[in-house]
Amino acid sequence: MLKPWPEAQPRLVEVAAGRAPADLVIRNGVWLAIHTRELVPATDIAIADGRIAYVGPDAGPCIGPETQLFDAGGRFLIPGLIDAHMHVESGMLTPAGFAAAVIPHGTTTIFHDPHEIANVLGLEGVRLMRDESLLQPISMFTQMPSCAPSAPGMETSGAIITEGEVAQAMGWEGIIGLGEMMNFPAVAAGDPQMLAEIAATRAAGKTVGGHYASPDLGRPFHAYAAGGAADDHETTTEAQAVARVRQGMAAMLRLGSAWYDVEAQITAITRSGLDPRLFILCTDDSHSGTLVNEGHMNRVVRHAIAHGCDPLIAIQMASLNAAQHFGLERELGSLTPGRRADVIVTSDLTALPIEAVFAQGQLVAEDGQLLVDCPRIDWPQSARNSVNLGRLPDAAAFGIAAEGTEAEVRVIGVIENQAPTRALTATLPVRDGFVTAGGEIAHVAVLDRHTASGRISRGFVSGFGYVEGVAIASSVAHDCHQLLIVGTCRQAMARAAAEIEEMQGGIAVIRDGEVLARVPLPVAGLMSDRLAAEVAAAAEAMTRAMKDCGCTMNNAFMQHSLLALAVIPQLRISDLGLVDVDAFALTTPVIQRAQAPAVRLANAPPPP
Amino acid sequence: MLKPWPEAQPRLVEVAAGRAPADLVIRNGVWLAIHTRELVPATDIAIADGRIAYVGPDAGPCIGPETQLFDAGGRFLIPGLIDAHMHVESGMLTPAGFAAAVIPHGTTTIFHDPHEIANVLGLEGVRLMRDESLLQPISMFTQMPSCAPSAPGMETSGAIITEGEVAQAMGWEGIIGLGEMMNFPAVAAGDPQMLAEIAATRAAGKTVGGHYASPDLGRPFHAYAAGGAADDHETTTEAQAVARVRQGMAAMLRLGSAWYDVEAQITAITRSGLDPRLFILCTDDSHSGTLVNEGHMNRVVRHAIAHGCDPLIAIQMASLNAAQHFGLERELGSLTPGRRADVIVTSDLTALPIEAVFAQGQLVAEDGQLLVDCPRIDWPQSARNSVNLGRLPDAAAFGIAAEGTEAEVRVIGVIENQAPTRALTATLPVRDGFVTAGGEIAHVAVLDRHTASGRISRGFVSGFGYVEGVAIASSVAHDCHQLLIVGTCRQAMARAAAEIEEMQGGIAVIRDGEVLARVPLPVAGLMSDRLAAEVAAAAEAMTRAMKDCGCTMNNAFMQHSLLALAVIPQLRISDLGLVDVDAFALTTPVIQRAQAPAVRLANAPPPP
Repeated sequence: MLKPWPEAQPRLVEVAAGRAPADLVIRNGVWLAIHTRELVPATDIAIADGRIAYVGPDAGPCIGPETQLFDAGGRFLIPGLIDAHMHVESGMLTPAGFAAAVIPHGTTTIFHDPHEIANVLGLEGVRLMRDESLLQPISMFTQMPSCAPSAPGMETSGAIITEGEVAQAMGWEGIIGLGEMMNFPAVAAGDPQMLAEIAATRAAGKTVGGHYASPDLGRPFHAYAAGGAADDHETTTEAQAVARVRQGMAAMLRLGSAWYDVEAQITAITRSGLDPRLFILCTDDSHSGTLVNEGHMNRVVRHAIAHGCDPLIAIQMASLNAAQHFGLERELGSLTPGRRADVIVTSDLTALPIEAVFAQGQLVAEDGQLLVDCPRIDWPQSARNSVNLGRLPDAAAFGIAAEGTEAEVRVIGVIENQAPTRALTATLPVRDGFVTAGGEIAHVAVLDRHTASGRISRGFVSGFGYVEGVAIASSVAHDCHQLLIVGTCRQAMARAAAEIEEMQGGIAVIRDGEVLARVPLPVAGLMSDRLAAEVAAAAEAMTRAMKDCGCTMNNAFMQHSLLALAVIPQLRISDLGLVDVDAFALTTPVIQRAQAPAVRLANAPPPP
Repeated sequence: MLKPWPEAQPRLVEVAAGRAPADLVIRNGVWLAIHTRELVPATDIAIADGRIAYVGPDAGPCIGPETQLFDAGGRFLIPGLIDAHMHVESGMLTPAGFAAAVIPHGTTTIFHDPHEIANVLGLEGVRLMRDESLLQPISMFTQMPSCAPSAPGMETSGAIITEGEVAQAMGWEGIIGLGEMMNFPAVAAGDPQMLAEIAATRAAGKTVGGHYASPDLGRPFHAYAAGGAADDHETTTEAQAVARVRQGMAAMLRLGSAWYDVEAQITAITRSGLDPRLFILCTDDSHSGTLVNEGHMNRVVRHAIAHGCDPLIAIQMASLNAAQHFGLERELGSLTPGRRADVIVTSDLTALPIEAVFAQGQLVAEDGQLLVDCPRIDWPQSARNSVNLGRLPDAAAFGIAAEGTEAEVRVIGVIENQAPTRALTATLPVRDGFVTAGGEIAHVAVLDRHTASGRISRGFVSGFGYVEGVAIASSVAHDCHQLLIVGTCRQAMARAAAEIEEMQGGIAVIRDGEVLARVPLPVAGLMSDRLAAEVAAAAEAMTRAMKDCGCTMNNAFMQHSLLALAVIPQLRISDLGLVDVDAFALTTPVIQRAQAPAVRLANAPPPP
């Protein structure tokens, strides 16, 4: 394990002075001096105890008989890349699997918010993620999740995060601050719990992650800024990003698997010429397939460069800027004495091939090959037995009762390439006392998997394009991660539920009684304990299976897993029922004749 | 007193939201958004509990019947200025007097290292300086002195700072880090005490001030950087500054009363176009006269602008950059929510007139007039009775005995406009058994004032140009601050010693039995408890008196007070005797015939 700097200091001085041999010397590189933003040719780096002891023209005196040598051959030496905000669970990997996937891409530091597992296992889940993070050969810092559940009163999460737990976690090793404070309306409204979580984080001298997902730059924005969030990754335009940086909040520009927010905002630097120090790059959410096929932070940096950013500034935005933001500038983020020896060797600062990666002084990857173990914790049974339905539902459990021959129902209208849904209505036939879905309209159901209550909620959804006889079930369902099933056939839905229960978490695609695809996610029902390539292959097969079931959407599974996200307008579904997000109230799938017109959502305007 | 941010947060949110009235609203300014480095017109700032709640286009909703209003009238609103490294004692003022002097110049934050008082009173002196600093209406942070005495074994300080005391002080409120680690050879050599002081500071998460006063950029420089210093203010060329910033150390560019180091280094930004974030402005040492007649950090910022620096970058170097360096970016250094409401109103960003100054939300100065009290502590008798000679010396006490009719003696050769001295020799007549000074050569003596030992050391000095019958005595004598007396007449020297003893510290100029000037410095023999204007007037009278005594040097008193600075080559004097700094050894004023040629310092080359 890496020694704290004060313990390493005496040896670093001896090595820098040339009085003691280094563990490793990287010779003859072009050093990116990130603080001055300069390239300095013919530079050696001497490393001891995982930290940089010397950066200068000649590390010769630091070389002893046991010193490992690496000849950079005139290539560039740049700091290891930092992902300043992300969720490991989005890759359906545990921290070990995620680290193994991104190390060959040059990522040596990750700030991750285990928000998903917190909704399933609470503080204990955060601790487990932290535990595995601390075992990795790279630096993985954990942000304490701030909002579980995301929509209190509208849904049942597996656990609740309290302000007391936030304060407690701030004393833990490896906890770097508060995860994205996404309940921005509550902060702006002065909600005591949300303010207390932020205050506890600041009192511990740590960094408060922000999340202000609104284009409104008026009073709520200013109140949110006054609440203490130190950054925001939800901006999508230059004006939004600049507004935050002016207020002293870092703008985290995001390129994830499904987020493309860098191009529209990097113009703050490339065109407007603003001081870049508070602009930071991040991924937020990366699927395994992206990690396997495209890259990680190297992909983001390349993308920024491709959109006109000076390569040295782009690298600053994925190293020094992030380190400063989290108060770790003297610990990492640059190739300077005392810092963790996280070094990338590359022969081209624009194409950014990741030719060798050192993390804490260890050669961890070369030419895309991982060279180290990424140790796993022994995930406990409490994390592995997270699908507790009480009893398995039969087909009848998915029926929605109604009187007469037809019923007017609410339908969640999924919109291609957008996170918000539309609140639609439709008139459906009633047979044998149950509303019958058909055509564009499918069933959707949420089953409580956290408390074995047997609770099930039901509704209708449109937009996926499923053919008859199919069901898609998933224990990944943001943010509470209950068991979410969409189907055109109640028998298939029951079968899908059984598959998830058997796997103890994951995704299953059923058609005509046959299992087309399974993605086992046995850790909290969110993550696989296999390698990224395997998970990516399973996910790819799952996507193909959804297509085979008639689904035509671009990000079919993401749209599926967001159906329960009860904080994004307009209509969602939780284990407690349909959620009218605009009214922040529960509602029913069948529209009662006695109901006031105010809740009749037909012909609702499209979301903003 | 200012509330910690977590306590202020709920009200800041209410004010920003427009649900509660602010204490103060500054209307209609051109806001310097220091993070993006932009000017934003038509901006209001709302302030509550001494902190900024809102910065935006309309603070109208934050205005209640009790809200104080200030109309900026379209003038610029810039962050209060920060002095990132300095010694309050250099102004011969206590923290209260210093604050009162600099507030009208727009200084709202000071990082000061009470190194001088630490040499007199040790940790207790540091605590007293910290106590008075915390009472001020501006933010005064104390750096724990690292090196007292400066030259262990070569001199007797009034107290010794230990690594245990450094570790203890790191837990004190108001201690922001370690004061300049000036024993750079010891750090580079791996000295355990110096490394332990740095390590204790870093373990407390605080900032280590550096001081590497050498042009050598080889091994010692790299070893010093590895030791953990986070900044350096001793650089005098662009190359030296850039070398430090490349290594991740901040370059503090200094414009003090006698330091002119900005012009030669600001080219790193103005010409070389480097990232300016790790370049910071400071004063290091400001005399009262400079504060009264020229300014403080406003003088430094104007100077940087006059030498080609973009005004917005120059202001960043005296605000945001310093705040980030000390880990206080979320507390001060910018006009953004949550930060201390330290605001300067100015109508011109180049001439930088300081038209109004707010500190922690209070209007503290307007048009050069101080509007607030700067409270003083009741300095205890232990600090006020710091001149303890044991017995007053008579004229004979200053005589240097020798046999024969003449003697070859060592002479400290003071060099105009330079801190180093020359080690000279001269042959002087011996009368009545004592060597007689004359011509260019005067007597110099150091009397132990800390322990009442009666110890006195004697030597010769040249370069001041004093006429006959004069003596200049001072209890300010860097760094041990023993009683230092230079004179051409032993009776006058005795009289001068008596004057200092009577004042319990200060400076006295005697000519022909008459007291030409007195500067009382009753606090630790270093500081006056009067206002800067009064001290400046006394110091000016003292300078005139030294001129009346024949002294022709540019910085006569500084040259005087540095005669005892046993860490700067070549020849100095301490209470223990003459110090051969190059050899780091004590020596005698009279050269013994038996001595080896190696110590014969005649015709020594000029210092580098």
